[in-house]
Amino acid sequence: MPDSLAIDASDVRSAADLIQGIAVRTPLLEYQPLNEAAGGRVLVKFEGAQHTGSFKFRGAYNRLARIPKEARAFGVVAWSSGNHAQGVAAAAKLLGIPATIVMPADAPSIKLENTRALGAEVVQYNRLTESREKIARQLANTRGATLVPSFDDPFIIAGQGTIGLEIIDQARQAQAKVTQVLVCCSGGGLIAGIATAIKAAEPDIKLYAVEPDGFDDTARSLITGKRETVAPQATSICDALLTPSPGELTFPINQRLLAGGLVVIDDQVRAAMRFAFSKMKLVIEPGGAVALAALLAGIAPTADEDCATVVVISGSNVDPVLYAEIIAGR
Amino acid sequence: MPDSLAIDASDVRSAADLIQGIAVRTPLLEYQPLNEAAGGRVLVKFEGAQHTGSFKFRGAYNRLARIPKEARAFGVVAWSSGNHAQGVAAAAKLLGIPATIVMPADAPSIKLENTRALGAEVVQYNRLTESREKIARQLANTRGATLVPSFDDPFIIAGQGTIGLEIIDQARQAQAKVTQVLVCCSGGGLIAGIATAIKAAEPDIKLYAVEPDGFDDTARSLITGKRETVAPQATSICDALLTPSPGELTFPINQRLLAGGLVVIDDQVRAAMRFAFSKMKLVIEPGGAVALAALLAGIAPTADEDCATVVVISGSNVDPVLYAEIIAGR
Repeated sequence: MPDSLAIDASDVRSAADLIQGIAVRTPLLEYQPLNEAAGGRVLVKFEGAQHTGSFKFRGAYNRLARIPKEARAFGVVAWSSGNHAQGVAAAAKLLGIPATIVMPADAPSIKLENTRALGAEVVQYNRLTESREKIARQLANTRGATLVPSFDDPFIIAGQGTIGLEIIDQARQAQAKVTQVLVCCSGGGLIAGIATAIKAAEPDIKLYAVEPDGFDDTARSLITGKRETVAPQATSICDALLTPSPGELTFPINQRLLAGGLVVIDDQVRAAMRFAFSKMKLVIEPGGAVALAALLAGIAPTADEDCATVVVISGSNVDPVLYAEIIAGR
Repeated sequence: MPDSLAIDASDVRSAADLIQGIAVRTPLLEYQPLNEAAGGRVLVKFEGAQHTGSFKFRGAYNRLARIPKEARAFGVVAWSSGNHAQGVAAAAKLLGIPATIVMPADAPSIKLENTRALGAEVVQYNRLTESREKIARQLANTRGATLVPSFDDPFIIAGQGTIGLEIIDQARQAQAKVTQVLVCCSGGGLIAGIATAIKAAEPDIKLYAVEPDGFDDTARSLITGKRETVAPQATSICDALLTPSPGELTFPINQRLLAGGLVVIDDQVRAAMRFAFSKMKLVIEPGGAVALAALLAGIAPTADEDCATVVVISGSNVDPVLYAEIIAGR
């Protein structure tokens, strides 16, 4: 474990200052049926209300705004299954930076369309045979553009961490004593940022990474102490959470700050999406629902009595036909 | 027009004190894609996050909490297509009052199920051949129970008006200058309460009632100056907005305080539900979407430059199969 981590709480505060009034301060919501289902108080941080429908705008804006003025004209290049793509495209549009996004050809069409609608150029690749990273690096080198990683970057991690600052503030307003926070995990940038912010303010709060079955690389890495990878043939409906291993920068943070990893199966994710539809009236994409799924399926630890669990809903960009199938139970 | 209206702003403040910490203070949300679609700033008051998934809990709790202690054991009786039913059932449960709800046999099954799940007794009737009011009055008389009207009651109107107080407060926090508010209208209790609260604080804000085509009784009544009724064969997907005429208490308030009535057709409602799904990540039921529909369809006036329109999303209790059909565009 390295002595110094990629970011600390001051980086998150700096990101919060930068995105203030630009990113949405998303609501922290409470629902009686969810409290009853969980057997305790639950607060839901709803990043579906963030620009582009996921938390990714926060980190993308914090990263792009740090690019020196003279480098901006050469553009940015990112690779993403979809939410990071949209976050980068929206941030680039606001900052007047040309954006090119390398996206898997089998990404949900809503994510491809939205990325193009935000003015970005989309380059598609085959997720099973080509390397998105290689394609993106070549593009960036050819054009002199800045690469924008989806999680393994200090500014990206710090930007996502602003959610942690909002959670602390909003939980206080709601007079809730939070003892645990559940966050989805793919590359680990979101939970690393949130953990950095929360642990600095409230060291006793426990944070759990939640991953889909088959993509439990962070859960296993937290146990073995080294960065594990997923099996290449693994599949999941959680298209936003398919990163094959924890990040080089994110894992040391998560190793130091997290209480553990939890794993949910696709049917538990579908059940959580249906619960959010019927009882919370929120649209959640599969990857955005894993933390809620862990809570509803009884996989997450129960919060102490009179204390609260925070669940982060990370994103809501789901194809209408898939969503219709899931909520109608087909 | 009578000289004195059924409620004034002090009744709404009293209701707000009573429901404080019991009802949900629902979020006022802002979405860039909605601002772009509307050509100006829009703030969305999301009552889908209220207990039981609609605004009805506010008025129901304010009404039931005023029943004298000695009368509570005899219970309450209400009639409702569904949202008022759930609101009354939830308030009754909290206050320990037995509740009986008279509901149309063709109400969405989710509303029937949820009302029963909240502990209320449900009595079904045929909406086309029987009088729910008569059935409810007979039940109340037989049992000595208190009748809880769905809109024509001062405490109900005042309870719904608490939304108006929250809008004023939350719009100030969002540094928005609101010039108009769009609210769905059936019996008119919701908009009468909201208008009472808002006009007392900000007399220049204009309020518009939005109704489904065929159920434009308030729009026509505002023009003719007397309480008009709908044609008996009228139909709409907006099951929550099928009241045949404005209320005896609500209409004089709305006549004095509203700027006018707007009318939307079912396809505009479906389009608004799809927009809310894809761009706002909120589940909205048909009746809850009419104000948003009026804005997106260009039926509502445009807000003044640098000013904001508030749209009230009144409820989100929609059958999953119907919702799936609408968002998948079938």
